[in-house]
Parts: sequence; C-alpha cells; structure tokens
Amino acid sequence: MTKHETEIIADEKVPTIEIIREFDAAPEQVFRAHVDPELYAQWIGPRSVTTRITRWDPRTGGAWAFASDRDGEEIASFYGSFHEVRPHERMVWTFTYEGEPDSVALETLTFEELEGGRTRLRVRSVVHDFETRDGILSSGMDVGVNEGFAKLDELLAKGT
Amino acid sequence: MTKHETEIIADEKVPTIEIIREFDAAPEQVFRAHVDPELYAQWIGPRSVTTRITRWDPRTGGAWAFASDRDGEEIASFYGSFHEVRPHERMVWTFTYEGEPDSVALETLTFEELEGGRTRLRVRSVVHDFETRDGILSSGMDVGVNEGFAKLDELLAKGT
Repeated sequence: MTKHETEIIADEKVPTIEIIREFDAAPEQVFRAHVDPELYAQWIGPRSVTTRITRWDPRTGGAWAFASDRDGEEIASFYGSFHEVRPHERMVWTFTYEGEPDSVALETLTFEELEGGRTRLRVRSVVHDFETRDGILSSGMDVGVNEGFAKLDELLAKGT
Repeated sequence: MTKHETEIIADEKVPTIEIIREFDAAPEQVFRAHVDPELYAQWIGPRSVTTRITRWDPRTGGAWAFASDRDGEEIASFYGSFHEVRPHERMVWTFTYEGEPDSVALETLTFEELEGGRTRLRVRSVVHDFETRDGILSSGMDVGVNEGFAKLDELLAKGT
C-alpha cells in the first residue's frame, strides 16, 4: 500500500486549518467511510482510543455525537450538526469538543476524484479567532489525524 | 421607545462580521424571539419581504429553513443547523443562502443581561475567507439587519 503524506496547513491570514490527504479509493468509498457510523468509528482518531457513536444522522440538517474511550473509560466527547451532506462530493459539519463548549469549528470536507480511482480529501476548518485555531493545532491533533488516516487506508484496502 | 443603534463590525484580522444591538427587553424575551418560529418570522429581514418558515427545530442538533417572499413570490431561501441552543444565553447556528450553496456562515449569538431588564445581543459570524465576508457586507445586509431589529423592537414593546 502506498503511504500517503498528510498536509496540515495553518493559513496566515484566516483562522483556518486545512488538511489535505489522498486515498487509494474512489470518492464514493472515502465519502461512505465518513457517513456510515460503523465505518467512521473504526478509523477516526488516534490508535489509543476507541470511538463510541452516540448520535448519527448523516443528512443535511442532521446531528452527530461521539465519545472517545480509553481502557473502557470515556476520556472525551464531541458533538455537532451536519449542515450539508452532498453525497460523494462535499460535507459541511460543525464540531465542538465538550471540554471546551464555547469553541465551535465549521468544517468543510470535499472529496475530489483523481485519476486511477483515487481521491483527494480536503478538510477545511474555520474558527472565530487565531487563538482558538492555534490551540487546536498545538493540542496534538496531528497524531489523531495521521493515525486516523492510516486506519482509513487500511479500511479502504479491505474494500469495504 | 428608545431608538437603538446597531453596530456592524468587520474585523480586519479575521473574516468575521459582528453585530451588536441593545434591546429594551430581558434576555429571555429576546432569546424567545429568536427560537419561536412565529415570532421570528414576524421580525427577521427587511420590511419589503415576508418570511415563510419551512423547517424549525430550535434545539441543539436541530435544523431550520425559511424562504423570503415578496408580493407572494419567493425571492430567496436559506437553511442551516442549530449547532447549540443554550436557553436565554447563547445560540450557535449555521447559515447558507441557497443562491450560493457553497457559502456557509457559522453564527454565534449571545444574549447578555444589562441593567434595567435590557439585553445586549451580539451576533458573530465567521466564514472561510475575506472575499465571502466582504461579499456579505456589500450585499445590502445592513438594511435587513436594521429593519429587522426595528421590527423586533416593536414586537418586544408589545410584550409578547
């Protein structure tokens, strides 16, 4: 399996984080791994935690929530809304870590078809200020992103 | 009735719009005028249009949609999600004008109690880039905001 690099870009001018990553699978499959709760729970986040989905309605106007468990104990929980779900193409959702309830990110995911049945995923998050953005960047989020995408590579390689 | 000024602030450093406005009513009343669909439809937007609510579930994780009609014809429609509804205190929602489906704003409303049973409302919107933000500012949104808040003053004065 090709090992793909993940780019994590902090814009200098706007409080955004852009994550760019290619996958050896079609947009339909990468999209499905984001909306099917059983698939999503298998790959999201770092390897040290398991994901327990508690609310999941992946439609425009639906909502979601999940908890992260380590050694059987909840260590964090997250929730948000599916602002828009445009199948195989684009998804916009909101994201809050319940430990910082006043902090909300707006994330836009696009699934771009590449040659050879591959996909370029872009995840662009915006928050209200640079302090919040820089706090997310320095939280160790890159570990979760990189390990999560490696698990997603493995899941996609199974062809599920 | 006191005529209140509305401040509309475009931040130089982040692609946000902040709207600040005081009302001669308690946070509970101003909040209710934002979540009760019958009240909301009576004041939101410019005087030249009427608002027809088509979806409304003002709870954390709920969704909303409404259309603006002029002379009985729909001229615009909007939709989004209620990311968080914290009664009488704070509301976070997403906002898309269907004419520009890829443009999404994340709006945080706070209802701050002032002396004398009054309220300071702050609406802080963030989008992904300055171009989108400046497009919203130059769209004539200030007319809708100012006329809408004048209608809200009238509605609150009735004590409903």
